[in-house]
Amino acid sequence: MTQLSIDRLNDIAAAVLIRAGASPEMARSTAAALVTAQAQGLPSHGLLRLPQYASHLRHGRVNGAAVPRVGHTKAAACLVDADEGLAFPACALAVSEAISRASEFGVAFAGVSRSHHFGLAAYHLEPIAAAGMVGLAFSNSPAAMPAWGGRRAIFGTNPIAAIFPRRGTPPLVIDLSLSEVARGKLMVAAQAGTAIPAGWALDKDGNPTTDPQAGLDGMMLPAGGVKGAMLALIVELLCCALTGAAFGFEADSFFAETGNRPRIGQAFMVVDPGALAGNDVFAERVETLIATMLLDPEVRLPGYRRLTLQSRAEADGIEVEEPLLNQLLALGEG
Amino acid sequence: MTQLSIDRLNDIAAAVLIRAGASPEMARSTAAALVTAQAQGLPSHGLLRLPQYASHLRHGRVNGAAVPRVGHTKAAACLVDADEGLAFPACALAVSEAISRASEFGVAFAGVSRSHHFGLAAYHLEPIAAAGMVGLAFSNSPAAMPAWGGRRAIFGTNPIAAIFPRRGTPPLVIDLSLSEVARGKLMVAAQAGTAIPAGWALDKDGNPTTDPQAGLDGMMLPAGGVKGAMLALIVELLCCALTGAAFGFEADSFFAETGNRPRIGQAFMVVDPGALAGNDVFAERVETLIATMLLDPEVRLPGYRRLTLQSRAEADGIEVEEPLLNQLLALGEG
Repeated sequence: MTQLSIDRLNDIAAAVLIRAGASPEMARSTAAALVTAQAQGLPSHGLLRLPQYASHLRHGRVNGAAVPRVGHTKAAACLVDADEGLAFPACALAVSEAISRASEFGVAFAGVSRSHHFGLAAYHLEPIAAAGMVGLAFSNSPAAMPAWGGRRAIFGTNPIAAIFPRRGTPPLVIDLSLSEVARGKLMVAAQAGTAIPAGWALDKDGNPTTDPQAGLDGMMLPAGGVKGAMLALIVELLCCALTGAAFGFEADSFFAETGNRPRIGQAFMVVDPGALAGNDVFAERVETLIATMLLDPEVRLPGYRRLTLQSRAEADGIEVEEPLLNQLLALGEG
Repeated sequence: MTQLSIDRLNDIAAAVLIRAGASPEMARSTAAALVTAQAQGLPSHGLLRLPQYASHLRHGRVNGAAVPRVGHTKAAACLVDADEGLAFPACALAVSEAISRASEFGVAFAGVSRSHHFGLAAYHLEPIAAAGMVGLAFSNSPAAMPAWGGRRAIFGTNPIAAIFPRRGTPPLVIDLSLSEVARGKLMVAAQAGTAIPAGWALDKDGNPTTDPQAGLDGMMLPAGGVKGAMLALIVELLCCALTGAAFGFEADSFFAETGNRPRIGQAFMVVDPGALAGNDVFAERVETLIATMLLDPEVRLPGYRRLTLQSRAEADGIEVEEPLLNQLLALGEG
């Protein structure tokens, strides 16, 4: 393990992306998001993604010169074209637009089209809470789950995140994907040679399996069965039908080096509590619910563990395993 | 069984509510919603609710003279006060406001405060699809599920519904609640004397149970475990923190005759596809996804079975069991 500061890791990450063909702006924006995920103790959305993104840039699956642009707008609604680049600059633009439109109109919807993997969904919502507003984020992703009753992958695991600001304390953050479990749990089971529970995955022919490798070669099952499948359908339509983006089944896997430009979509909604019952009522309601949840000593509020880890990383730096660090340093060399 | 026309059932239902103290407008609006649910083959949200609503009116848990009013508004956002009446007139007003605001601003959010049971979530969205727009509906409900890891009921089963219009064919409708199963499945198991699977319910002390009666006396578990619990938290905050409505744990059960006015909340979001990628792109995307889903012969689109049943009911009437019909006729008599 090597201990590195967040600034140093941002530089290393940006160098990897620039070397692979990303514009400096795209590289900086993406590096900041991935290093934040790493700092928050979520490595699956952290530095591990850098070799993947770099590979996509090199293989033409990402347009490194992309410049996201605000396209069609109408008052509280706007569409951002990610221009087939990495998702982070486009999502930042969409969120910025949504915040200013919600300030003016009370609520806003910003869609992103022709986009790519947006990493941690909740990351994009932080500026919304900083502006005192409620935010929702949705993304589709390459097909990994069947429609309910089906035997072929149609929907992505389709993350949903929400943020609720609090006074004088960090916001409440909720962030989940709609598969029963993350693919990472199947990878761990495959390495350990253990079976997985029924209900996690189907094999490539759409049959239930307890073999983790068969599940990895097949499909993930939705969380809560039909309910997760229905929510994934909603997310797919919010992110693609409103924006013109590609559905999960039209996007090649993020885990493959070659393939198409995924051109998936994201959707952000912002609501200003001040436009409804007001900021004082909002603050009272949020704190009342949280206090009641915490009467149960076993209940943990979502989103706070990662903030603790982030504070520690900001003070002490982040430990990175040598092989990954060496890989990143090599990828970033001129 | 007695076969009755929808018009006749609307009259019978309205009479029950008027006799119990509802205004004619509240009675008509509520009757139409419950009879539609009955016509759509969803009796748990149909005529069975009439004795419950009538009891709430008689016991002061509902203000029969309520007049819903548009309260605070700001461009695309508005808050409707249900005035502690039955939810249907307030939800209709909120949806109507949201449609006209989304027409003007591209997107809209309408919250409802001081409300009651809103029945089938998707019912409220039908006018949104008729206007060519996408709609989302959320409601909280009296506490029935614990927070993740908790042992006391905090959240309602908190339904989520979405509607996506289609050209020349009825809209795609998705409607689900966030408990693993409906309470009705526990009632069936309790009557049959069979065990329920682990993961459906906790007993009143918060311990897992396979005894359906212990589950009915205790709590439902969220769909997909932690994921359903997190989604229920999002719904609770969207419906209550933005509107000032009561949380699930502040509202007495709908299934009790006596208790407080539930004062729960609803939230509706409307997005105009014409304000984003446009109506033609939207229609192409929706049909492409549906066609791909239907390549799998086992896949059924959500929401269409109920339309078939409704058409049949409109043509042939609805069969009502004699004991229920006699109960309703007695409740409606002067």
